[in-house]
Amino acid sequence: MMADLYVGLVHYPVYNKNMDIIASSVTNLDIHDIARACRTYDVKKYYIIHPLDAQKELIKKIIGFWQTGYGYRYNPDRFEALNRVCWKNSLESVTEEIKAITEKNPYIVGTDAGTWPNMVSYGFLRAKLKDDRPILLLFGTGSGIEKQTMEKFDYILEPIYGREYNHLSVRSAVAIILDRILGETWWEK
Amino acid sequence: MMADLYVGLVHYPVYNKNMDIIASSVTNLDIHDIARACRTYDVKKYYIIHPLDAQKELIKKIIGFWQTGYGYRYNPDRFEALNRVCWKNSLESVTEEIKAITEKNPYIVGTDAGTWPNMVSYGFLRAKLKDDRPILLLFGTGSGIEKQTMEKFDYILEPIYGREYNHLSVRSAVAIILDRILGETWWEK
Repeated sequence: MMADLYVGLVHYPVYNKNMDIIASSVTNLDIHDIARACRTYDVKKYYIIHPLDAQKELIKKIIGFWQTGYGYRYNPDRFEALNRVCWKNSLESVTEEIKAITEKNPYIVGTDAGTWPNMVSYGFLRAKLKDDRPILLLFGTGSGIEKQTMEKFDYILEPIYGREYNHLSVRSAVAIILDRILGETWWEK
Repeated sequence: MMADLYVGLVHYPVYNKNMDIIASSVTNLDIHDIARACRTYDVKKYYIIHPLDAQKELIKKIIGFWQTGYGYRYNPDRFEALNRVCWKNSLESVTEEIKAITEKNPYIVGTDAGTWPNMVSYGFLRAKLKDDRPILLLFGTGSGIEKQTMEKFDYILEPIYGREYNHLSVRSAVAIILDRILGETWWEK
């Protein structure tokens, strides 16, 4: 038995480099790379969270290319990955959808390069996946999710430390974190 | 004491979808995302291996933007990451350079989604990093590095299994593999 994991990429409210609160742009590659990682680790849905309806149309256009005609024939695998991608206009509407799907209240888990009072380890989250509550794992774009929003989350996952300062793209961070919490236990071999 | 790790992204000889041997194109995002992962895990150099001189110019142009003027002022961190990126026209010239830098013969380690007779675990490679020989870790673009070339490598790293079929982009695979062999031992917490 494993709880269902959901991933959300937050485009609003996030900080820009000057720590202003903005809505960041959706990018083609964030959709593809993260969808493929979600497919690899059997994440149930990958939500792209952006307040503007126009971004919904862009996402539909990008996904549509791979789900019909030439794109589908060229790479049918991509269809499988992109099938899990879904636009929502707010964090609230994501949690509402997960509640409707699972009939359970999801744990909301943030990720960040900094440390927080409710910070938890990767081992803690691996164990939490054996609970019967779904988990919504959130990643920020830009310079990270706005502080007051972060403070409402149930847990914040420990940073990826690496060997030096963390320079990872959000795409690489998602891949590493999914591997740490859902990957095979390669260290036991 | 840790051995030096080098990463190479192989654009030739690789397979396309029809299993023809081709030289794949260099992409902007493979340069950036992998350079940032290499910087995070203190990889010494990130070699982009492509036989065409024209690709060298493209790489120099992309890197140059972030190393001077506007790009540098906008994001000085990126300079640090891209500083480790280096074009070479063949695998042989990469190993020659590593020999010249380290005065040692590097272990050549391939990565693949399939299994090989000389396949090794992540734990094996973590331990190998305590040897005094440098390691060159190679990733294929397209549909993977040509078989006869792979057969010459000292070791092939075990695949990333994930929970379903591996759909990862090469960028995500590099991030996960560097984390598994160079990341902090988060599973011991």
